[in-house]
Amino acid sequence: MSVYIHSVGMTKFGNSENNSLKDLMLAACREALDQANGLKIDAVYVGNFMGGSLANQEILGAIVANDLGLGYIPTAKLEGACASGGIAFRQGVLGILSGEYENVLVVGAEKMKHASTAEVTQVINSAMDQTTNEKYAGLTFPGFFGVTANRYFYETGASKAHLAMIALKNRENALNNPLAQFQKPTTIEEILNARIITDPLGLFDCSPITDGAAAVVLSSKPSDIKILASAQASGPTMMQDATDLLSLSAIRLSGRQAYEKAGIGPQDIDVVEIHDCFSMTEMIAIEELGFFPKLEGWLAIEQGKTRVNGEKPVNTSGGLLSRGHPIGATGIAQIYQLVHQLRGNAPNQLEKLPRLALAQNLGGTGAYSVVHILERV
Amino acid sequence: MSVYIHSVGMTKFGNSENNSLKDLMLAACREALDQANGLKIDAVYVGNFMGGSLANQEILGAIVANDLGLGYIPTAKLEGACASGGIAFRQGVLGILSGEYENVLVVGAEKMKHASTAEVTQVINSAMDQTTNEKYAGLTFPGFFGVTANRYFYETGASKAHLAMIALKNRENALNNPLAQFQKPTTIEEILNARIITDPLGLFDCSPITDGAAAVVLSSKPSDIKILASAQASGPTMMQDATDLLSLSAIRLSGRQAYEKAGIGPQDIDVVEIHDCFSMTEMIAIEELGFFPKLEGWLAIEQGKTRVNGEKPVNTSGGLLSRGHPIGATGIAQIYQLVHQLRGNAPNQLEKLPRLALAQNLGGTGAYSVVHILERV
Repeated sequence: MSVYIHSVGMTKFGNSENNSLKDLMLAACREALDQANGLKIDAVYVGNFMGGSLANQEILGAIVANDLGLGYIPTAKLEGACASGGIAFRQGVLGILSGEYENVLVVGAEKMKHASTAEVTQVINSAMDQTTNEKYAGLTFPGFFGVTANRYFYETGASKAHLAMIALKNRENALNNPLAQFQKPTTIEEILNARIITDPLGLFDCSPITDGAAAVVLSSKPSDIKILASAQASGPTMMQDATDLLSLSAIRLSGRQAYEKAGIGPQDIDVVEIHDCFSMTEMIAIEELGFFPKLEGWLAIEQGKTRVNGEKPVNTSGGLLSRGHPIGATGIAQIYQLVHQLRGNAPNQLEKLPRLALAQNLGGTGAYSVVHILERV
Repeated sequence: MSVYIHSVGMTKFGNSENNSLKDLMLAACREALDQANGLKIDAVYVGNFMGGSLANQEILGAIVANDLGLGYIPTAKLEGACASGGIAFRQGVLGILSGEYENVLVVGAEKMKHASTAEVTQVINSAMDQTTNEKYAGLTFPGFFGVTANRYFYETGASKAHLAMIALKNRENALNNPLAQFQKPTTIEEILNARIITDPLGLFDCSPITDGAAAVVLSSKPSDIKILASAQASGPTMMQDATDLLSLSAIRLSGRQAYEKAGIGPQDIDVVEIHDCFSMTEMIAIEELGFFPKLEGWLAIEQGKTRVNGEKPVNTSGGLLSRGHPIGATGIAQIYQLVHQLRGNAPNQLEKLPRLALAQNLGGTGAYSVVHILERV
């Protein structure tokens, strides 16, 4: 049996001060359902990370089923830090493969902008093991990826300029994406001179705080987009357990499993959305997914290979850095962009219509990685 | 394909001030894994409700996989309010039915006692829709079930004494369960005279705040306990949307679906664990699950039919009321008790070894209900 994508929906990402978490969820779901050709939904999976902590709102699955009049169907929320959306998507796939459901609605959503940066940072840190010395020593996510960036510079010829090239590419892509959070043009100079968050990462190297939601309707009934592979891996929850600071093993493992299931290799992928929570994370991911050799990602960046219509276009949506990163929504927003690319109507649509697309969604400091490969059939 | 239960584990429920949420999870998992005959775990599902809000700890799935050395396998946390455990269990079942996993570890856990009652109440209210007038009017969970109790009294000949009989039965059962939170004997008089929480519900009619965890190993490989049916339904998220105050339609629907899948009826069930978050909830559930006719549950209670070795033994563990209710752990703790009943070594072991057991786990004010039927094979 195979699982297919029928339709997608997505809100504008950014600051939605007049919309509740529920409003955002329902808007994305309605758009997806309107285009689902009347498929009767059998279950709802929600990807969400901080609804409980920041909005005091759980039971999101039941709320979606009730408010959209889907009937009293099974629903659940999935949490896996920033990979919550990708994990919810995968549960939808497994739910259909189990034979229990024919049609599943998956929605990812987050509302964050109403909280202070300190509050958001506190909640995001719940994606680290709170009982470890790393937490007590004050490690944060920018801290983690700042260390990996410095190590990467030490091991290679790369510099802060290469991270800036990633940030600039994604910002330029976002300029053409009306749903992206950031639409203001920038320059390499502005990026390089921006205030430092954690050395060497500056403001533009870090994904923003974002409100938003994205939804997708999956079915066992064939459509034009088939899910060729779903794979998930976990990784070390602590930096001290990583055998190589420049490897996010969960990305590598989930990628390898996805390629095996799909019977293809990284060279076959036409368009990619990866989890650039930091510019440095995109650098690691393009290597771990096998698009470029280990420690040579920076050369590919320099040569423009990951730009729209480059050899391996990465984050044509603008990525987390510029489309925005409403935690639970991100994994589904990646699918949203890839579905549009495969259908030929995406922002930054590739000149040659892609056939194979890959989405990679990361959680924690590599504690979770989910990879999905989509095929236009 | 069928799914089987190989082993279970559970911590003492109560006040675990010296154990973190992680400690509790790992202890329950270790017990289950030690008895799983070396099955290699392919995925971990965690049921948890308030780890983010009360312990600032998410990524529980990755923590379990890492700390128990299970390898870098897929993991996720499931949330569905007080049904989080049952929903996680069901995802484990679907994961195996999908063909993606052979052996799955499911753990439910919650740490609540370190927080104030006000904090816990605030977080529990996130299991209501925060955007509705009911929330702004101040509806709480004891309020909801207090109203249903008064209505039940109005419609039937039942009184507060019948609720007290439920509370007393579950307390007496807990006295024989060394893992139960409450081990102090009580009397009908003490229960009836206890301070009122929400009229007519007194202290003994309400489940307590509890720390604890429970775990189970599922497999496609046959064992002595087969999962005959897994069913889940949602229900109204708001009291104002209920067509009948004395019906929790999600319980009725999930029960009916489970019986259909199992090809049996309520009369065939030998032993039951249901979600007695309040004594009144047990009253409604024994009717909605078809064990007794609508509005006649109180007569069955009066006649002792739900007692150990009665016609339909309910909550031989002590139930949520006296075993305790660590939210995310409850659905798995029900399975723990039923597995022991089916194997003949439970607290309050039935005289006649049961063959069919039913677990019912509720979330919100009926927003979620999950029913599993287990068979000794």
